[in-house]
Amino acid sequence: MTRARTDEIPHATAAGVAVGRGRHGRGVFATRRFAEGESVEVCPTLQVPDSDVSGTLGDYVFGSFDDGDVVLLLGFGMLYNHSPSPNLEYFQDDPEMITFVATRAIKRGEELTIDYGAEWWEQRGLEPD
Amino acid sequence: MTRARTDEIPHATAAGVAVGRGRHGRGVFATRRFAEGESVEVCPTLQVPDSDVSGTLGDYVFGSFDDGDVVLLLGFGMLYNHSPSPNLEYFQDDPEMITFVATRAIKRGEELTIDYGAEWWEQRGLEPD
Repeated sequence: MTRARTDEIPHATAAGVAVGRGRHGRGVFATRRFAEGESVEVCPTLQVPDSDVSGTLGDYVFGSFDDGDVVLLLGFGMLYNHSPSPNLEYFQDDPEMITFVATRAIKRGEELTIDYGAEWWEQRGLEPD
Repeated sequence: MTRARTDEIPHATAAGVAVGRGRHGRGVFATRRFAEGESVEVCPTLQVPDSDVSGTLGDYVFGSFDDGDVVLLLGFGMLYNHSPSPNLEYFQDDPEMITFVATRAIKRGEELTIDYGAEWWEQRGLEPD
């Protein structure tokens, strides 16, 4: 049995998010209020060569700082829907995690969204909705 | 803005797990005690054709009930390490989620483990450790 002191665990997840159904199918929702600037979720990353991913799965993965790689997000990071006025932004401040932060006050029950970026839609010949 | 009543959110995650470092590198650890039979984490699934996944990523995905598909687990489901005496078992009681349940009492700080199954090791020419 491997034990770790929980105060040494670096990737603790914020306990304020849950997956549910919204206007765009599955999405992630706040289960409590968040203040502007507050960390909403810390997602462990799984960085793999982009050749490991194809088809539909390519719609879920994030770009990597390393050429030729893509990043899968664990936690709920791959389930955030796009919004033109998102309430989250995200930072990769560590190779093994991406942090999602509230860009404004968020109410309990509100869907949590990010901006996929113009390139995501252009590559797919789609218009953001 | 899409709102959902949080009591309607089906995939609420258990707030008692965190990612950390153990004997096998990254793993998932209990941040509170769990009783035998208690749900430890409910992981949303992402089912894709197995042709969407290759290389190292294939080590992380789960089998699907549907031939030709594999299942990625969100939340921390893909980060549980193997143990010959695991403290979790898992059930897919819904196409969109897999539930990890404690097979015995688990202490705060203990690493959470599953049994990958003999086939997983055989396919890779490895011995479980």
